[in-house]
Amino acid sequence: MYIEKIQSPVDLKGLDIDALKVVADETRAAVLNRVSKHGGHVGPNLGFVEATVALHYVFNAPEDKFVFDVSHQCYPHKVLTGRAAGFLGDVEDMNAISGYSSPAESPVYDNFEVGHTSTSISLATGLQKARDIKGTKENIIAIIGDGSLSGGEAFEGLDEASELGTGIIIVVNDNEMSIAENHGGIYKNLRALRESNGECNHNWFKAWGFEYKYLEEGNDIQKLIELFKTVKDTDKPTVVHIHTEKGHGFQPAIDNKEAWHWGMPFNITDGSRPASLHYESYEELFSNWMLKEMKSDKSLIAVTAGTPAAGGFSPKKRQEAGIQHIDMGIAEEQACAMSSGMAKGGLRPVWTVYSTFIQRTYDQIAQDLCINSNPAVINVMWGGTGTMNDITHICLFDIPMLCSIPGLIYLAPTTCEEYFAMLSWAVKQDKKPIAIRVPSNGVHHTSELVESEFSFTPKYKVAHKGSEVAIIAAGSFYQKAENVLMLLATKGINATLINPRYLNEVDATTLDSLKASHKLVVTLEDGCKDGGFGERIASYYGTSDMKVLVGGVKKDLYDRFDLNQLLSDNRLLDEQIVEDIIKIIK
Amino acid sequence: MYIEKIQSPVDLKGLDIDALKVVADETRAAVLNRVSKHGGHVGPNLGFVEATVALHYVFNAPEDKFVFDVSHQCYPHKVLTGRAAGFLGDVEDMNAISGYSSPAESPVYDNFEVGHTSTSISLATGLQKARDIKGTKENIIAIIGDGSLSGGEAFEGLDEASELGTGIIIVVNDNEMSIAENHGGIYKNLRALRESNGECNHNWFKAWGFEYKYLEEGNDIQKLIELFKTVKDTDKPTVVHIHTEKGHGFQPAIDNKEAWHWGMPFNITDGSRPASLHYESYEELFSNWMLKEMKSDKSLIAVTAGTPAAGGFSPKKRQEAGIQHIDMGIAEEQACAMSSGMAKGGLRPVWTVYSTFIQRTYDQIAQDLCINSNPAVINVMWGGTGTMNDITHICLFDIPMLCSIPGLIYLAPTTCEEYFAMLSWAVKQDKKPIAIRVPSNGVHHTSELVESEFSFTPKYKVAHKGSEVAIIAAGSFYQKAENVLMLLATKGINATLINPRYLNEVDATTLDSLKASHKLVVTLEDGCKDGGFGERIASYYGTSDMKVLVGGVKKDLYDRFDLNQLLSDNRLLDEQIVEDIIKIIK
Repeated sequence: MYIEKIQSPVDLKGLDIDALKVVADETRAAVLNRVSKHGGHVGPNLGFVEATVALHYVFNAPEDKFVFDVSHQCYPHKVLTGRAAGFLGDVEDMNAISGYSSPAESPVYDNFEVGHTSTSISLATGLQKARDIKGTKENIIAIIGDGSLSGGEAFEGLDEASELGTGIIIVVNDNEMSIAENHGGIYKNLRALRESNGECNHNWFKAWGFEYKYLEEGNDIQKLIELFKTVKDTDKPTVVHIHTEKGHGFQPAIDNKEAWHWGMPFNITDGSRPASLHYESYEELFSNWMLKEMKSDKSLIAVTAGTPAAGGFSPKKRQEAGIQHIDMGIAEEQACAMSSGMAKGGLRPVWTVYSTFIQRTYDQIAQDLCINSNPAVINVMWGGTGTMNDITHICLFDIPMLCSIPGLIYLAPTTCEEYFAMLSWAVKQDKKPIAIRVPSNGVHHTSELVESEFSFTPKYKVAHKGSEVAIIAAGSFYQKAENVLMLLATKGINATLINPRYLNEVDATTLDSLKASHKLVVTLEDGCKDGGFGERIASYYGTSDMKVLVGGVKKDLYDRFDLNQLLSDNRLLDEQIVEDIIKIIK
Repeated sequence: MYIEKIQSPVDLKGLDIDALKVVADETRAAVLNRVSKHGGHVGPNLGFVEATVALHYVFNAPEDKFVFDVSHQCYPHKVLTGRAAGFLGDVEDMNAISGYSSPAESPVYDNFEVGHTSTSISLATGLQKARDIKGTKENIIAIIGDGSLSGGEAFEGLDEASELGTGIIIVVNDNEMSIAENHGGIYKNLRALRESNGECNHNWFKAWGFEYKYLEEGNDIQKLIELFKTVKDTDKPTVVHIHTEKGHGFQPAIDNKEAWHWGMPFNITDGSRPASLHYESYEELFSNWMLKEMKSDKSLIAVTAGTPAAGGFSPKKRQEAGIQHIDMGIAEEQACAMSSGMAKGGLRPVWTVYSTFIQRTYDQIAQDLCINSNPAVINVMWGGTGTMNDITHICLFDIPMLCSIPGLIYLAPTTCEEYFAMLSWAVKQDKKPIAIRVPSNGVHHTSELVESEFSFTPKYKVAHKGSEVAIIAAGSFYQKAENVLMLLATKGINATLINPRYLNEVDATTLDSLKASHKLVVTLEDGCKDGGFGERIASYYGTSDMKVLVGGVKKDLYDRFDLNQLLSDNRLLDEQIVEDIIKIIK
């Protein structure tokens, strides 16, 4: 086996084309081995095996610098740069290797921690400028998929790469897919370029000042090597557009590209996955609710920025929604601003976005949406500690971010019934942008009456009236507070429990009402506490005698954390909270 | 005079071309009258007078919808939609009309509050989708300058406008300038299009699927009318590229386009401005410092995203800096990500950006920069209450935003000497991204010794040791705290004064040390207090006996506020702070 012996790309240099093909086959098998046992990005990595072998054969990493966009295609690179063990071994070996480009893991071969989309060209232009100032001669190679090209940062990067005017190689890995199908005018041009073998009349890249090369056979190592050799050491901004097959070499991933973009472990022989128990999910509940409502309300629009699965919109459901589902491609800024425009025009858009990606559109939320008070709804998915845990995909920061934007209401339902009550109200009112933090701790039901009308002014709900200690527990941490309440009860403490429902501002009336019979308020939020919900309550009580214990996760860079450890480190385990409460009030 | 009688665009419809030319002349004179007395955006508005008259003559607002990008060219539109008084009258009448597109001001003719760049197409696609769903037939017209095209959101908007496939008209007002000169590969294509009368080989807009029309004579009403008639009621995504002259009709603005993009009042006969007293400014001090340092350190790079004036880089200074100054065009995401890349490559970039615009790049700061711990420096200008006050340009939110991003150090110098000490340290260290909130309350000097080394762990500086009350006053509010301290002294209170220097995290050691002899901590920050600096201190002390009074501006949508009123409403006048302190400790 070659790849077990390949410690660095240098080890490829002496190989002939047949050996390189074997390396590619072994690399593909290694990638499949990993994703079948560990889960991960399947299709984009399989399609980029040959290109990676060719790139490492032609260029000289680490002197030549590779910058991978979004990292969905970096597994073959990892296999060839000393990390094959994370692909060949068992799941424990695999856990040691992240699914993303990571200098923390390989300071020599990985230049940036990357997990959000459309960043590679911008980052690479920085290396380009540094090279030009230093007067060195290395190749700078940004590798970006066609799907990632739809993000604003990618365009800004292309624009600047051309402006710099010196050598940079931008490999556009065109597999005709984003995570789902592509959306956007740029794909008309990519298609025209593919269909004309790169020769069509209006070439966007040439228009912007790039040298341009096209290769139809993007999974042919020999042709890739010939192509890369023609651009190596170029002193011009150059786009190399290669047409690859997403899922190449693994039929199930070729047959259903969306389902195989990313996935959990599977049976490598036939691509089957163990039948999972069917749990209720907000993705499914939300999309079902939307489809039902859409039938009677043509103004209701489901919006996504390249991640339709976030709202449960499978291909079938997208088809059912028809023009009432809109996918912007990976373009969160557009999703937010267009939602504001749609709301202005009388539609009722609901944009569903993962917590980690809402960061991509702070200014559009603040300016395009909130200053204009247009009644668009934002569904924030997976916000909290129990979801994604890669350093690039941490979902802990949406509360501090959204709650510092004036004009936005941010609701935190605690149960399924409360969520849909809030959603129904949010899409019916026509005064304000409303964001909703969809619970991320599973679907909890309540038999209690849930209100159907909400005000624009925060009004907390007192769920249980006790004394001495009040727990104000938002969203996904509400059930934790229920547990804490029970534990306290066993110790003779009858604590008050409050569901704040609103994250964006404090309810002064409720907070004041606690003063008479409570001496401690505990806040619980499933996210970063720095700049978050609880600190506002601490500040509100700052000049009073009320003591406040703010519960949440300390701001920090976390990578692949263990949930229990994270909670424990932040004194967020049920028993720890009880302990801390008792310490304060005793 | 026509324009005094024009209450709506309908009043233009019966006019012949000669009369329309008079309307244009009168509109230009009105714009000049306003900007000469009131200040405002000069060049872009003057260049767009004829196009505005033609647009309102051909299209039927308010049924047809105009969306202005960044609002730098919306004055003529205001003149023709019932707001001429804000241009013809005295300064008080002018104050009633904002310098930006504003539905709060004209719900009928202005569709969005707009002040940040590159948003028009995205917002317009929302109106387009709403029209398509409703089945109505109005024209949707986005108006965007060539300078604004460099922002990522504009590209995302173009991409989606083409994807929607129905009628939208995007007027590209190409005056060959951004605020300063243009930077980016896209300008190569705009130039080629101008030079070929729209016929060059590779047309970016056609490549992306747009119908495309070019007009060289973008200040010729008759030709503009003919052109707009050809695209009216189109059912295709259409780009109308018109070549206009920035500053048209006013020679000083034509001769020096950058200086006349925006300006304070001036003498309308010769364009002269009253000689202003020369005050020290951080813009000038910073650029001088950079130019001096650049000579001995070739790795030091001044970065801007289309606003070189923010760092004091005049055309002459840019020339002097040469390749060590880089302007990305209006592309903050690129500025941030490329700065990270440059720092990774061994350069020392210092990106200077206004507080209100740093919002445009939250995710790049979090992902491209901070997760990677690359030692780029961000100079945040004008953060605070005393700078810009239009609703779109509020500079109060940088502390909550930047302080919720893990991995970023945010420093708040209080004097000129402290600022340059921090800047010198920040560009020399190679471990961390550092943002510095440049004081926005004028240049204050200190004769006290300023440290030259800073740690990555927050360490507050106790400037005066008193008892009972401690004031922790950050950055631009430090001098306010000095005043408060003096006022307190006259009342027999010897308060402690602390310069926290770090905004991003609390200094627990210093905070703990206050417990013994203080019962009240007052925090002061020149910005929004919700999610800000002081709340973290309130939270830190939450379970202790220390009382905390958090001083800052309440989160809200503010528009053209009066500074004194804003401070007073937020209990931030010196005497109010003293009053509140006494009320608590007595």
